[in-house]
Amino acid sequence: MKWSKTHLFTFKEAPNDAEIPSHKFMIRAGLIKKIGPGLYTFGSLGLRSLRKFENIIREELETSECQELLMPMVHPRELWEETDRWNEMGDGLLKFKNRNDQWFCLGATHEEVITDYIRHDIKSYRHLPQSLYQIQTKYRDEVRPRFGLMRCREFLMKDAYSFDRSEKEAHDSYDRLFAAYKRIFDRLGVEYRHVMADSGNIGGNKSQEFQVLAEAGEDALMVCDSCDYAANVEIAPSISSQEDYEGEAGEPTKFDTPGDRSIADLEKTTGVEAKFLVKTMFFKDEEGNSYCVLLRGSDEANDIKIKKAIGLNNPPELLTEDEVLKLTGAHPGSCGPVGLNIPVYADEALTNYKNFIVGANEDDKHIKSVNFNKDFEMAGFYDLKSAKQDDKCPSCDSGRYKSFRGIEVGHCFYLGTKYSQKMNANFLDENGKSQFIEMGCYGIGVSRTIQAVIEQSHDDNGIVWPMALAPYHVHICNLDPKDEQVTAICDSLEAELQKEKIEVFVDDRKERPGVKFKDADLIGLPIRVVVGGKGVKSDSFEVVVRKTGEKLSTSQKDLAETCRKALSQLS
Amino acid sequence: MKWSKTHLFTFKEAPNDAEIPSHKFMIRAGLIKKIGPGLYTFGSLGLRSLRKFENIIREELETSECQELLMPMVHPRELWEETDRWNEMGDGLLKFKNRNDQWFCLGATHEEVITDYIRHDIKSYRHLPQSLYQIQTKYRDEVRPRFGLMRCREFLMKDAYSFDRSEKEAHDSYDRLFAAYKRIFDRLGVEYRHVMADSGNIGGNKSQEFQVLAEAGEDALMVCDSCDYAANVEIAPSISSQEDYEGEAGEPTKFDTPGDRSIADLEKTTGVEAKFLVKTMFFKDEEGNSYCVLLRGSDEANDIKIKKAIGLNNPPELLTEDEVLKLTGAHPGSCGPVGLNIPVYADEALTNYKNFIVGANEDDKHIKSVNFNKDFEMAGFYDLKSAKQDDKCPSCDSGRYKSFRGIEVGHCFYLGTKYSQKMNANFLDENGKSQFIEMGCYGIGVSRTIQAVIEQSHDDNGIVWPMALAPYHVHICNLDPKDEQVTAICDSLEAELQKEKIEVFVDDRKERPGVKFKDADLIGLPIRVVVGGKGVKSDSFEVVVRKTGEKLSTSQKDLAETCRKALSQLS
Repeated sequence: MKWSKTHLFTFKEAPNDAEIPSHKFMIRAGLIKKIGPGLYTFGSLGLRSLRKFENIIREELETSECQELLMPMVHPRELWEETDRWNEMGDGLLKFKNRNDQWFCLGATHEEVITDYIRHDIKSYRHLPQSLYQIQTKYRDEVRPRFGLMRCREFLMKDAYSFDRSEKEAHDSYDRLFAAYKRIFDRLGVEYRHVMADSGNIGGNKSQEFQVLAEAGEDALMVCDSCDYAANVEIAPSISSQEDYEGEAGEPTKFDTPGDRSIADLEKTTGVEAKFLVKTMFFKDEEGNSYCVLLRGSDEANDIKIKKAIGLNNPPELLTEDEVLKLTGAHPGSCGPVGLNIPVYADEALTNYKNFIVGANEDDKHIKSVNFNKDFEMAGFYDLKSAKQDDKCPSCDSGRYKSFRGIEVGHCFYLGTKYSQKMNANFLDENGKSQFIEMGCYGIGVSRTIQAVIEQSHDDNGIVWPMALAPYHVHICNLDPKDEQVTAICDSLEAELQKEKIEVFVDDRKERPGVKFKDADLIGLPIRVVVGGKGVKSDSFEVVVRKTGEKLSTSQKDLAETCRKALSQLS
Repeated sequence: MKWSKTHLFTFKEAPNDAEIPSHKFMIRAGLIKKIGPGLYTFGSLGLRSLRKFENIIREELETSECQELLMPMVHPRELWEETDRWNEMGDGLLKFKNRNDQWFCLGATHEEVITDYIRHDIKSYRHLPQSLYQIQTKYRDEVRPRFGLMRCREFLMKDAYSFDRSEKEAHDSYDRLFAAYKRIFDRLGVEYRHVMADSGNIGGNKSQEFQVLAEAGEDALMVCDSCDYAANVEIAPSISSQEDYEGEAGEPTKFDTPGDRSIADLEKTTGVEAKFLVKTMFFKDEEGNSYCVLLRGSDEANDIKIKKAIGLNNPPELLTEDEVLKLTGAHPGSCGPVGLNIPVYADEALTNYKNFIVGANEDDKHIKSVNFNKDFEMAGFYDLKSAKQDDKCPSCDSGRYKSFRGIEVGHCFYLGTKYSQKMNANFLDENGKSQFIEMGCYGIGVSRTIQAVIEQSHDDNGIVWPMALAPYHVHICNLDPKDEQVTAICDSLEAELQKEKIEVFVDDRKERPGVKFKDADLIGLPIRVVVGGKGVKSDSFEVVVRKTGEKLSTSQKDLAETCRKALSQLS
């Protein structure tokens, strides 16, 4: 493909709203262009990568007995009401009325539609198992779209669904799809981890994420340095040593802590180590009920764990300063669990704390010599804090967590019968008894993965495409497009490589060499070939490997072979 | 592919809302399934056809210097306001607010988005020409979705756009894309016509449709029986002989026509031939202005021609009976142009009518001896009637119209600078002067075409797929799936044919032969092979050509070769 025949425009500067390298480079290299907040057009090069990824997904799913179909993007309300998710999904689900005053939503996910699809057909155990998937546009109404395709509104997703006769077989399907996911991400040539994860409002009780490792990732991951355990920090167990702490004995007594707002302040005032001070936090659920959560002063609260401990559908929200004042009579920093009429949950690490210090629910005062279930009633002790690097692995004896940042690109969920029960998707088993279908669902953020790969694989000058997703494999810089001999060499190299299914992009623009080299680095195809008048005279051509910067000098005769060899070392 | 490995369920009965054969067969063969009004899921077989068509489109457009990109389905209001189409498109454009109270619409077409896309890049004549396309979901809020994919809400469309420096070059691009369309529809192996058409609210002044011929088509086409002229009846000129008619001379005089409501009634009462009676109709535009239209009693009004004559953006609507009563004081059937204060347009065929009869605007009365521009003022004489079979061709001397029904599957529009002017998409020409970009747009109803092909190609028993779109090429009926020898023959035939890229579908279900044959006819793959225990014993197998019903008997040794030969005669 000749540059002059494509609609490709590169940019020296990224727009102001591009904060991370992958977003900047995708815009600058013309892979995507914004048409509105969270809405992007894929240019032809970006689309080529997207299609390559789609094909990898198709190949691996089809060898995993998964069949492709295509569901609509617009869904009738009735289906989403059957599972209660019309309301549960919250404002992220975009709802609208059509001209006939009927309600619809834009598909944020397709569990309802696929369950409706199969429940009309599947009647007998002989019709199971089934695995189906689609690659389709999704829409989620992000409040603040950012990071390009990472957190946008309209995006391309692959979503697969498995339908089985029993929990056992559902787990077999899960494992089969999980294995396909590993093959898919292996083929991309990116560094990724699969980690245990929360099921969010998709439901079910087993869920694993595929995370592409990258500094700019929104997710924190805890990965054991010894065994293969890995989890999203959302759910990674934080194993507490449950140290003993015993403060000053006696009746609870208020004391002055003027101006102390943080644990660090209180540490100075009391001389007690932060980890032995008890931090009090307040949360509320969607119905407005408040909860008190106690943690060691050195720990961070984990809202997903708190959600599970309380038994909520969605993570609770932190109370605002005003709400805390109204609830406790004091500002945050002077609050505690004593004298409140709300459930109190404490992190397990506090189990053996006695006579500890908490806020007094009176500004600038704390209370000492406080004890669980004596000075206030406990709802229970749970793992409520976020795990940290070097915490103990829950799965092996000697391992410790190493922490990473990741971009979630895939997610597997075992759903059980959550949807089939609510939507009455059942079958007659071998004994003629009606059973609910066991389900799993499996997503890949197709467009997001493209950006995640770039976020992991770039340098200061631009993208460094892995072979599997590179829009083209070879970038020929024709330095003298007016020179017939130079152009003939470019054309013949292009033709020769294309015969072997090597995809070639030729920069035949009338631009200075410096501009062409900068653009080649920005676009980031695996191999760059430089063909100019001088090189023709001296029969010397340069082949540059984008990833390593390695420069190979070669003659015209060996040009194609040098490209071939360089490419074979990359794939 | 084995039936047992697919999610494919066929149905004996079509749902009640399926009125035409293609809709019935698509549902019954499991190609599509409805999830809501105008919303369909493509099952795996349906999707295979869709993908084959997409690939044909891609191949032909890419050899026509047209590059693929992918634009979002959700569009910000601001873009559609730039062209005024936010309002002009009417209720068919689905609009909604997101959670941040910003307005968006679901893309019904993408002129605004693509023009925005290119206007940021294209600055110079050196950047032109460009042709871009996408295959993307569209949404139009049909009031009454019907006929399956023919008139649904969410559908798959290929939309291409050309950008040129001059009107001349824009017409070259138009011709290039038009030629690609011909190749695309030729490859489908369907009978189609390209016809002159109205531009609707897309705009521009040249437009041609590609119509698949089928009785159930919503469009009427007039095709010359002598030259290559063909047009949608919406715009097909109706050439009038402009006969002389002279009724009873004198002053306009009311007379009684009790109970006469139709031209036929009036013909009986007056003894005047229908074609010499003057029919009065009333229309209103979007702003509520009324218009009077006069036609020969034997003609039909054509709202597209009336739209053009008046100079409206959209076709006018017929007044309701109540509105007519309010406007004229009489019920339809007794109305006429005399004494009304609204513009009166008459069909050219009436030009030489004198002393004619019209309704009196008083129930059960007409007036005779009425004359144009004497008894009422005329806004003008135009071609306002629909052409009919056997009307004279406007393009050659001897030709007459032959009328056909068609399903519109493609549409080419020359747009000129309608969008580029409104959206300020311009470039500097060779002389450094700013010019608006010349545009064209080119659509193919991808999902609709699949159904149109079936509407044209079926019999009473089911679909008759043309090779190019058949989900698979060969349908093997394994009559004894438990018989190892039978199954081995099926498997080896499948493997042998697949090696040659012949796509094979094997019915390996435990069903009676009768059920299998019925389903094979319904699904309609080009070739059916019957393999059963009896045949194995006698070394006799049947190969049936779906289209012709031809049955070829063959031995096991020649089975693959017989399939190959039968297929080669079909493609």
